[in-house]
Amino acid sequence: MTREELDALLLSIEAADPEWLHHAQQRQSELTKPPGSLGLLEAVANRICAMQKTLTPSVDRATIVIFAADHGVCAEGVNAYPQAVTRQMVANFLAGGAAINAVAHGVDAALKIVDAGVIGETFDHPSLITRRIGNGTGNICAGAAMSTAQALEGIALGIDCAKQAVAEGANLLACGEMGIGNTTIASALCAALTKTDPQLICGRGTAVDDEGLGRKRDAVARALQLHSHHLASPIDLLSRLGGFEIAAICGFCIGAAHLRMPLLLDGFIATAAAAVTVALQPTIGDYLFAGHQSAEPGHVVLLEFLRLQPLLNLDMRLGEGTGAAAAIPLVRAAVSAFCNMATFESARVSQIAAT
Amino acid sequence: MTREELDALLLSIEAADPEWLHHAQQRQSELTKPPGSLGLLEAVANRICAMQKTLTPSVDRATIVIFAADHGVCAEGVNAYPQAVTRQMVANFLAGGAAINAVAHGVDAALKIVDAGVIGETFDHPSLITRRIGNGTGNICAGAAMSTAQALEGIALGIDCAKQAVAEGANLLACGEMGIGNTTIASALCAALTKTDPQLICGRGTAVDDEGLGRKRDAVARALQLHSHHLASPIDLLSRLGGFEIAAICGFCIGAAHLRMPLLLDGFIATAAAAVTVALQPTIGDYLFAGHQSAEPGHVVLLEFLRLQPLLNLDMRLGEGTGAAAAIPLVRAAVSAFCNMATFESARVSQIAAT
Repeated sequence: MTREELDALLLSIEAADPEWLHHAQQRQSELTKPPGSLGLLEAVANRICAMQKTLTPSVDRATIVIFAADHGVCAEGVNAYPQAVTRQMVANFLAGGAAINAVAHGVDAALKIVDAGVIGETFDHPSLITRRIGNGTGNICAGAAMSTAQALEGIALGIDCAKQAVAEGANLLACGEMGIGNTTIASALCAALTKTDPQLICGRGTAVDDEGLGRKRDAVARALQLHSHHLASPIDLLSRLGGFEIAAICGFCIGAAHLRMPLLLDGFIATAAAAVTVALQPTIGDYLFAGHQSAEPGHVVLLEFLRLQPLLNLDMRLGEGTGAAAAIPLVRAAVSAFCNMATFESARVSQIAAT
Repeated sequence: MTREELDALLLSIEAADPEWLHHAQQRQSELTKPPGSLGLLEAVANRICAMQKTLTPSVDRATIVIFAADHGVCAEGVNAYPQAVTRQMVANFLAGGAAINAVAHGVDAALKIVDAGVIGETFDHPSLITRRIGNGTGNICAGAAMSTAQALEGIALGIDCAKQAVAEGANLLACGEMGIGNTTIASALCAALTKTDPQLICGRGTAVDDEGLGRKRDAVARALQLHSHHLASPIDLLSRLGGFEIAAICGFCIGAAHLRMPLLLDGFIATAAAAVTVALQPTIGDYLFAGHQSAEPGHVVLLEFLRLQPLLNLDMRLGEGTGAAAAIPLVRAAVSAFCNMATFESARVSQIAAT
């Protein structure tokens, strides 16, 4: 994908339709419940109506895509788990033994795994989507994570995955990631995008100890310093500080918005990618939902940047798309209530008494 | 049900088993995820293991019971909707047009409706459970809501509903309510149980205006004053200040705990009933989950009283069991991850690196 092709696609992404948002709000007021009493679920249903320009939206067929890749920043000793765990967990996803397998099955969502650049040999598994941008990224403390061409290749991968899922029938998308070291990468992206002190953003990721957390904060600060003259454009920011799976999630967000499909984000890493795309084209934000608020401190900074209210806040910090997957039933409940409830008139229920 | 029979049943309710809680926590640490990374979902699964004394719990068959009844306190002008809406909404539940019908269907839960004392004629509908304790309660500002015998009859009704649901195969229970005026009743119970100023507890319920809110606070304060010498025991409190559907929910909590079944509470009213039962027998609290935190200000007071952390916080304030129903998939996700994930050993995934 060339930069020009990307720009043309970004320009084509329309905002959600304010007229349909209004129609949906009007419809909510006719349903047999006190006005606003379904809280955030009403806003969810209304937004999906506005995305899809309908009062009969459908979100019954969900597809979760997990993008996996490795990160050169692991050389800085920023993570609790050895880098080989990225590869081991991809194998675990493929064998059906990870948390996301159990949660995705439980919420009746399709699950796809994408190797966007895991270190080592190509996996030999029929259901894995292999689109390796490289054999792990470069160390952001020593140079760029990837080239601009690789960033664009990652974006194209994500767009293709969104298109493929929708072509296969999905009407609700969700994404997650696997990549040891990627909370450090997301912290760098978050700090650069939101101009926030890395000290306030970096957390313990999966479970790093005090010393590891210190190295993580130091690594982010050094990377921001090293690349400080090359972070003006979101694509530069992505290629300098990003990751292959993060570039792919950027593409997944772009593809979902282009197709006017609701996309449930997972936690800190997926939300960092989404924030990069909203910096590229603000209308993309209209298609995003925050599945949950993770325990990672930078996540709330990104949710505020994106003005997204999370559906869940369960102190989860697993990644893999688990926080997005767990929120799928809530999106379905929101749409089901909107589409299937009786009106005050049809059910002959009295409205609020005039007082 | 006599008071002696109730006391014998209460005495038979065991606490959740601390050994099985420990076994479950140990198992969590072997699963392929960073320790604690599923957050509150881990605690949910562990608690269910401890209730059921197993490491292979099942929560696939959920039953939601809605208890409906009317309230004499409506004479005080405390609600936004006319009292006839209780009856109209029961008809709406039976016709499948309410929010809870849509949400229950979406989460694949059975739904049962119970007339515990709705004003007017007996409904003629085959799927309604008719166990009317009376034709609406008395006005708590003028006298007792009900007699002690009626309170015990309501409790027996709820116990029977829990037993019946479990006999039919349910392994996850949830409850909700319908009763115009019952946020006023729950506010009175909450104030009396937690010794909290009614001003801090009373909220707008479904949508009462400023004047109605003033009347509601005043009514609660007058009722507490009127019954102040008769609120020492939880059963007296229930008969003086409660409601038929609230007595039935008390019984449903008692029945669930007796059967060692997890019970998802809905919002303020269901939680007020649960708090009455925990005042009767603290071990009942071990079987309760808070489906959500409602927008009603007294609800957080009750959740603290019960030391329950809500699974959802979506600014919902509808009742009907919608907040409990929406949380059912989270309980299932928690148990599914616990039961179906691979271990580090079985999946050959490396654990945290020694540092």
